[in-house]
Amino acid sequence: MPVDEVLNSRNMSQNLNDLPPRAALVEIARDFHARGWMAGTAGNLSAREDQEHFWITASGQPKGRLDELDFLLIRIKDGEVVERVRPENKPSAETAIHRAVYGLFPEARACLHGHSVDACIASERAKKNAKSLRLAPIEMIKGFDIWQQNPKVDLPLFENLLDIARLAEEIRKRFRRQAPAITALMVRAHGPTVWGASLQDAYNRFEILQFILSYQARLRR
Amino acid sequence: MPVDEVLNSRNMSQNLNDLPPRAALVEIARDFHARGWMAGTAGNLSAREDQEHFWITASGQPKGRLDELDFLLIRIKDGEVVERVRPENKPSAETAIHRAVYGLFPEARACLHGHSVDACIASERAKKNAKSLRLAPIEMIKGFDIWQQNPKVDLPLFENLLDIARLAEEIRKRFRRQAPAITALMVRAHGPTVWGASLQDAYNRFEILQFILSYQARLRR
Amino acid sequence: MPVDEVLNSRNMSQNLNDLPPRAALVEIARDFHARGWMAGTAGNLSAREDQEHFWITASGQPKGRLDELDFLLIRIKDGEVVERVRPENKPSAETAIHRAVYGLFPEARACLHGHSVDACIASERAKKNAKSLRLAPIEMIKGFDIWQQNPKVDLPLFENLLDIARLAEEIRKRFRRQAPAITALMVRAHGPTVWGASLQDAYNRFEILQFILSYQARLRR
Amino acid sequence: MPVDEVLNSRNMSQNLNDLPPRAALVEIARDFHARGWMAGTAGNLSAREDQEHFWITASGQPKGRLDELDFLLIRIKDGEVVERVRPENKPSAETAIHRAVYGLFPEARACLHGHSVDACIASERAKKNAKSLRLAPIEMIKGFDIWQQNPKVDLPLFENLLDIARLAEEIRKRFRRQAPAITALMVRAHGPTVWGASLQDAYNRFEILQFILSYQARLRR
Repeated sequence: MPVDEVLNSRNMSQNLNDLPPRAALVEIARDFHARGWMAGTAGNLSAREDQEHFWITASGQPKGRLDELDFLLIRIKDGEVVERVRPENKPSAETAIHRAVYGLFPEARACLHGHSVDACIASERAKKNAKSLRLAPIEMIKGFDIWQQNPKVDLPLFENLLDIARLAEEIRKRFRRQAPAITALMVRAHGPTVWGASLQDAYNRFEILQFILSYQARLRR
Repeated sequence: MPVDEVLNSRNMSQNLNDLPPRAALVEIARDFHARGWMAGTAGNLSAREDQEHFWITASGQPKGRLDELDFLLIRIKDGEVVERVRPENKPSAETAIHRAVYGLFPEARACLHGHSVDACIASERAKKNAKSLRLAPIEMIKGFDIWQQNPKVDLPLFENLLDIARLAEEIRKRFRRQAPAITALMVRAHGPTVWGASLQDAYNRFEILQFILSYQARLRR
Repeated sequence: MPVDEVLNSRNMSQNLNDLPPRAALVEIARDFHARGWMAGTAGNLSAREDQEHFWITASGQPKGRLDELDFLLIRIKDGEVVERVRPENKPSAETAIHRAVYGLFPEARACLHGHSVDACIASERAKKNAKSLRLAPIEMIKGFDIWQQNPKVDLPLFENLLDIARLAEEIRKRFRRQAPAITALMVRAHGPTVWGASLQDAYNRFEILQFILSYQARLRR
Repeated sequence: MPVDEVLNSRNMSQNLNDLPPRAALVEIARDFHARGWMAGTAGNLSAREDQEHFWITASGQPKGRLDELDFLLIRIKDGEVVERVRPENKPSAETAIHRAVYGLFPEARACLHGHSVDACIASERAKKNAKSLRLAPIEMIKGFDIWQQNPKVDLPLFENLLDIARLAEEIRKRFRRQAPAITALMVRAHGPTVWGASLQDAYNRFEILQFILSYQARLRR
């Protein structure tokens, strides 16, 4: 087939960055649900709209069955809901964590939070009150732009608090003192939150962290 | 794409509650089979039709290959088959457990029973004759509407009896004395039964319990 | 939707027994490949044509990519190839095992052999030279028509021999002395062979055995 | 259905060798991504174009979302990029390893490199500085054309180096002294590279090695 034909027939939305942001989040949510990372109604996904706002998934919806209207536009500064298409939709209970991420990291364009059995197991094995989880120095870690032989990379670890506002504040406080080595954090017994410079980048990094934590969960016994 | 177009083009059956109940059960059965929770002809799914009746899957059918006619309408009170489309179909052998659930919990609209390797492993590790399995206090437990820090939640555990009528009677007896903390029970070496206020709710909760039991099966060794 | 419409619109091939036998085997092969039970070109599937013949998959083909012409008709008595559509196709190297099964069990209509990591692990834990593997008495065992409380069921176990004719002869010899408790056997470090009274029945039983061996592989450590 | 109709209706691209090489690689990449062997942008796939050149995946692309234009034509001798459709595409960072394989083995027509948790775990358990990993003598090893009872087969093992040129040179040096027993090598804490006499053959062998390493990762604890 001549190159021109291929170029014309190409499905331009193959890369997540070629999709409208909310359509990309719908696709990611279906994908994460199918992989067991958004069981029940767990998890929340967001994409930055502009420097001051981001779209986030509605609360309490099964994430494998969202559509593009199940998102709310949030103001980063104060968490105000600026736009919602379905009047009954409420923003995710963990919106405050996304606000912290977008506020701290202007280059973050998307932020993905899921739950995974592997991540819970890997984090459960960290010492009590540990502030971080040392990641195994396997090749996959290069996906976080760490280009060293046997790098020592720590995943920031937070205790799971019922009070999300307080958890968000702890994230803000700790990251203001010291930026994390990678664009990710883990809440113990809960799940990872990963952000990136684009939707595709955040998606890639979520997969990468999941690979590393799965390796750690299964290796150390 | 303008909001109107999205709203018009929306597949209204995305949420399981937007489907006719038996169509939703067919979809759940295919999904559970694909995930290994309904191997062979194992498992049975039901949805309440009204206060006195529910539809349940036919016995002995491979659950990934049902259609909407493979259900029987059962009277809760006495287990009578009130309607069957295919004359050769028989109600699930475990219909008595569904009758117990619908009889005990008027708010239950759907009841899902599958088998899973993880659930069998987690329950096998419970002490002999234990009446319950303590669930790990991970975030996912909030999917059962438990909003506490480090909650102590017990999954009711029953021994696997060949005599289903007796098993159903034990469930009824124990739950009349004390309602379970969550809308689920586990039969040891067999599998979980989960109910919910709607089809989507029961499906979500089944996934959530499966996540927690998978965590427990893999963590404790 | 009225019952008539559903009945008319029904995809009659939902049950594997409603498909032409070779079409059903093609579907099973794709399914088993996708689940990791037919990696590379491993495994072989057959269906009885009449009392004296069966169709078996061609040797050396990737099993996720078969079509209905990739089968050969084999005479049970002597292994003669009675029909082949593609002249280059050769019968599976393990045809002799299928011949043994169809010769021993006139009621067997289909015979499925795959490889699985779980089955290899479970069988590796059996004692050296053990002639059988005791199956865990979990509920799923009822799928083999064993209706007892805590049944003691043994899966016949054979050592993996390079010489398939000799292996087939051992199977024949042992099963003539004593029929197996279930319609299955396991070759150590290799994989299960499961047969059934129909294509759907053999498929169901393969899934069931896989569930039980997966449970055993993961429970005993 | 008469044989003629089946032959006419057959999807001729079922076997990977019936597809144009880059289309086959796109299909393999989607398949490997879905199985978790190409998380993030990890992994790289190539197919020989002629004795002096091969096509390889572009660097930094998510491998589940490639199209046929995301490949570069590489000269084996010196690594020169002879053709690229999208000017912004760069060849995979690990192109040097593919060059080593095609240079060493004229019969290699395709070369597949992925990452897998199982392979990382199995290789992590090898002794420090071990030059090879003994493969378990399970039946599946016949997929590498090893037809012996209880064969002793070693998978060549290399340490993971940041300097890919040096790693490629080590592969070349070691394999010139002694050809590997199977068409595969493993880089520790990284992943397997598998080649074959055709695209389908390389794909089959990648699956087979993955099966064996998964067995080893889960058996030895």
